[in-house]
Amino acid sequence: MASTDKPTDPEYNKEARPPPPATVNYFAFDVSLRVLLFAAAVTAVVVIVTSDQTKFIPMLGILRKAKFKHSPAFVYFVVAHCVAGLYSIITTLASLSVISKPNLSTKFLLHFAFWDVLILGLVASATGTAGGVAYVGLKGNNHVGWVKICNNYDKFCQHLAGSLAVSLFASFVLVLLVWLSVYSLHCRVPK
Amino acid sequence: MASTDKPTDPEYNKEARPPPPATVNYFAFDVSLRVLLFAAAVTAVVVIVTSDQTKFIPMLGILRKAKFKHSPAFVYFVVAHCVAGLYSIITTLASLSVISKPNLSTKFLLHFAFWDVLILGLVASATGTAGGVAYVGLKGNNHVGWVKICNNYDKFCQHLAGSLAVSLFASFVLVLLVWLSVYSLHCRVPK
Repeated sequence: MASTDKPTDPEYNKEARPPPPATVNYFAFDVSLRVLLFAAAVTAVVVIVTSDQTKFIPMLGILRKAKFKHSPAFVYFVVAHCVAGLYSIITTLASLSVISKPNLSTKFLLHFAFWDVLILGLVASATGTAGGVAYVGLKGNNHVGWVKICNNYDKFCQHLAGSLAVSLFASFVLVLLVWLSVYSLHCRVPK
Repeated sequence: MASTDKPTDPEYNKEARPPPPATVNYFAFDVSLRVLLFAAAVTAVVVIVTSDQTKFIPMLGILRKAKFKHSPAFVYFVVAHCVAGLYSIITTLASLSVISKPNLSTKFLLHFAFWDVLILGLVASATGTAGGVAYVGLKGNNHVGWVKICNNYDKFCQHLAGSLAVSLFASFVLVLLVWLSVYSLHCRVPK
C-alpha cells in the first residue's frame, strides 16, 4: 500500500517534477551526428579540391585545365563546407562537455538549435549553388549558348557529383541535429 | 512579511510552476512571420515569372527571347517558392487555430519547428541554385566559354536579382520562425 501512496506525497512530487532528462543518451547521439557532419564536410572539401583535370582539346589543339577555382560557385561551396567542418569540431567538443555537466544541457540545446539552423542554411545554399552550375556543366544550355563540359572533363565532373552527394548528406545530418535539439527540448516541457 | 513568505509556501510554488505560457503573444508573432513568408514567396514567384524579355541580337541579326523556363535552376526556384507559399498558408491557418486552442500549443511548436527546417532547406538551396546560374549569366565564365547574357537582357536580369533578394529574405524569415519555435519551447522548460 505504501507504494501506491507515494504519488500523492508532496515530498515525492517535489523530487519527481521535473523528471531527470536522459542527457547522456541524447548528447551521445548528438556527438555521433556532429562527428558525421565533420566527416561529410571534410570529404566534400577533399573530393572537390582534388577534382582538377587537364585534357587535350582536339578542336583547339591545346591542353586545357578544369579547376574548381575557375567557378565562384565552387569556391563558395568549399568555403561553406570549411565553415561547417570547423563548426562541427567546436560543437562536438561543446556537446561532449555537456555530458560531464548535465545541468547546462537545456541552455546548450537552445544554442545548438540556433546555430545548426544557420549552418543548415549555409550548407543547403552552397549545395544548391554548386549543383546549379554543375548541372549547366553536365547538360549545357542551348538557349544562351553555354556548352556542356562534362563530356570532356569526366574525372572533374565525377568529383563534383561525389562532392555534391556528400554535401546533400551533410544537409540531412544538419536537419537531424535541429530535429534532435527541438525534440529533446519538447520532451522537457511538462505535459 | 507575508509577501516574502510566499515563495516558500508549497501551494504557491505548485501554482507558479510551470508558468502559464504566453501563447497568444507568441503565436501572434508566428502568424505575422508566416504571412510575411507567404508575401515573400508569392513576390519571388511573380517577379521571376514576369522576367521574360525579347531582344534583337545584332551579331546574329535575329530576335531572341530570355525566359526563366530555359533554365532548370529557375524552374526549381519557382517550384520551391510555390511549395513554400502553400506551406505558409497551411501553417498560418494552423497557427491561428492554436490561438483559440492554447492547450495544443506545445505540440504545434514541435511540428512547426520540424517542418520549418525542411522548408528552410528547400528555399535556401533554391536560392543558391538560381543565384549560381544567375551569377554565370551576369559575369560569364571565360574558362569554359560561357558568355554573359545580362549585358543584353537587362530587364530579365533585374527581375532575377529582385527575385533572389526576396528569396533571401524568405530564408531569413524561415530561420526566425525556427528560432521562435525553439525559443518558445525553451521558455516552457522548467528551470
